[in-house]
Amino acid sequence: MSEVYASRRARLRDQYGATGAAALVCGHANVRYLAGGAPPGAALLLAPGEDVLFHPRSQADDDQSSRVDGGLRTAVCEGPDDPAVAAARFLAGADGPLAVEEDHLTVARHRALAVAAPGLRLTDLAGAVEQLRVVKDEEEVSRLRIAAEIADQALGELLESILVGRTERHLALELDRRLVDHGADGPAFPTSVATGPHSGRAAHRPSDRRVEEGDFLTVTLGAEYRGYRCGIGRTFVIGTAPADWQIELYELVFAAQRAGRESLLPGVGCREADHAVRHRLVAAGHEEGLDPCTGHGVGLEIVEEPQLAPAAMGKLDACVPVTVGPGVHLPGRGGVRIDDTLVVRPEADGGPELLTITTKELLAL
Amino acid sequence: MSEVYASRRARLRDQYGATGAAALVCGHANVRYLAGGAPPGAALLLAPGEDVLFHPRSQADDDQSSRVDGGLRTAVCEGPDDPAVAAARFLAGADGPLAVEEDHLTVARHRALAVAAPGLRLTDLAGAVEQLRVVKDEEEVSRLRIAAEIADQALGELLESILVGRTERHLALELDRRLVDHGADGPAFPTSVATGPHSGRAAHRPSDRRVEEGDFLTVTLGAEYRGYRCGIGRTFVIGTAPADWQIELYELVFAAQRAGRESLLPGVGCREADHAVRHRLVAAGHEEGLDPCTGHGVGLEIVEEPQLAPAAMGKLDACVPVTVGPGVHLPGRGGVRIDDTLVVRPEADGGPELLTITTKELLAL
Repeated sequence: MSEVYASRRARLRDQYGATGAAALVCGHANVRYLAGGAPPGAALLLAPGEDVLFHPRSQADDDQSSRVDGGLRTAVCEGPDDPAVAAARFLAGADGPLAVEEDHLTVARHRALAVAAPGLRLTDLAGAVEQLRVVKDEEEVSRLRIAAEIADQALGELLESILVGRTERHLALELDRRLVDHGADGPAFPTSVATGPHSGRAAHRPSDRRVEEGDFLTVTLGAEYRGYRCGIGRTFVIGTAPADWQIELYELVFAAQRAGRESLLPGVGCREADHAVRHRLVAAGHEEGLDPCTGHGVGLEIVEEPQLAPAAMGKLDACVPVTVGPGVHLPGRGGVRIDDTLVVRPEADGGPELLTITTKELLAL
Repeated sequence: MSEVYASRRARLRDQYGATGAAALVCGHANVRYLAGGAPPGAALLLAPGEDVLFHPRSQADDDQSSRVDGGLRTAVCEGPDDPAVAAARFLAGADGPLAVEEDHLTVARHRALAVAAPGLRLTDLAGAVEQLRVVKDEEEVSRLRIAAEIADQALGELLESILVGRTERHLALELDRRLVDHGADGPAFPTSVATGPHSGRAAHRPSDRRVEEGDFLTVTLGAEYRGYRCGIGRTFVIGTAPADWQIELYELVFAAQRAGRESLLPGVGCREADHAVRHRLVAAGHEEGLDPCTGHGVGLEIVEEPQLAPAAMGKLDACVPVTVGPGVHLPGRGGVRIDDTLVVRPEADGGPELLTITTKELLAL
């Protein structure tokens, strides 16, 4: 595996470029991507002669989560020493540019770097590592596939249990337990269970409200598997017969979400993929309160590049996993949210690959 | 309640000072402290004439978690607009200093603020809000007291159940469920269950290892109650008779932790409180691998000022809640961690107030 990380680092070097430059990576997922493992707080220095991972001393150094792979030299920072500052000190005496991640460094840490190595000229690495992370290799996709399978299993089991009378909080906790039962490292993001008037909301925080007959029930959950995170969202109706407004709203969101899924081909603009979903919801009068993005990339983080949004730049590439997850929420009544994770694939390969396969029929539970 | 937040903001104004200056608060817990509620991503502007809370539009605006109190004006930011940048734009045209939190702003956001309001001179508010948060009022202490009670209850119930054969992950998930059952908003931090060779480690991430006879079992958990977080850590032994080395190690950590607890009086230096714990562990030969802090403040965050550490400045004040939580871990064998939350009180009031009251006898389970 260590060649994978070394080759990622080589690709990064090609990007930020000129010989003799150094780069310092501090974003947690970025460090993990380039080093194969990253204890919290670690900073990765790509110096001209060698790559060094600086990290705090940990009592858990034999944990798999903090194992470092990729043939890197590692340096342990003692006590309260900031690994990024230690990396800058390592270069002290050197001059020339050091590219840092201005999106991941606070102003205060940035200043501490400048003080630690006054000869260096700090430049901005910007989102270079995030851009490298957009297209996934097959090992990454296979971890996402397993994460999706785990989320599908946890959700499927929940649907077989009695729901009426149970609180959102307890259902969410049960889903978390099932995710772990099926092999997840943990939830990919806070599991959301939204009943009745809460249904359809983005990232609803589970409350003590109990499931009632006639409710819409929106469940959004995801699994983290070996660092990779992916999610699913579904909306169900509780009781035997959905009301007309529920069927109508469900069919609208379903059609919009399907259009988004079907648009996911290499070369399609991110804003077009968003538009495919959004214009149907807007045309039906639901512009107010729509999410700024109708989907986004997933990987080491549950939200990463690209964004599917009206002002997004860029086009989709093959092997980019994205979510398509529109939702409509009617204040006081509730709503519908349907969210899938798919991998962009060319039509020759069968088109977009759906990772989260739980049915999207409107189930009455 | 809203006078509480208005008076906190007035105290902050007194600190950063000069008339005519404005301040922008972005740290999530800091915004919550000053506004009484803070949707994720919110930024609080204290301008000369009025205070305005800028926050992203949320479908959950009626959630209690994002309710805003304190007689503030609020301004909703649409789509991807950064609330901090919106606040700077609000001041556009003004000149003079704007104090920002350089510890909570990335270099990239800081630059965006400067661009949005070029007439402003950005200065550093540093840790001014964090300093205000150190001494708690009685309402804050009473929330912490309830959080501690919840953690004690969840832990107490676990001790009554069968433990041998169950995995660390499942025990941790069960504790999370019990925390919520007893009224927590959620865990205050990731619940840690560490068995056998993992025991005694700081922030051990629960694994699939099962509890075995003869193990040390270290459990660290905490509850969040109405925004306030506090924690407890205990170590038990599994089976009927602890081994000699277990008794000896337990007694050492217990004595060190007790010395730390007893030191918590107003006027005592933070480094002295640390020393009371640390020197006993160092004298017994456990310097290697000791945590950089033996305790720290708790409140809206699970780790906040003050730190109890060898190089810490400052003295303890009355009404400051802190943890005292040393641990010793022997690689390959395991170890002991004992962690309490207490409130610093003068001797006239009975000395330090223990919030986490689960027994610290070495229980054999």
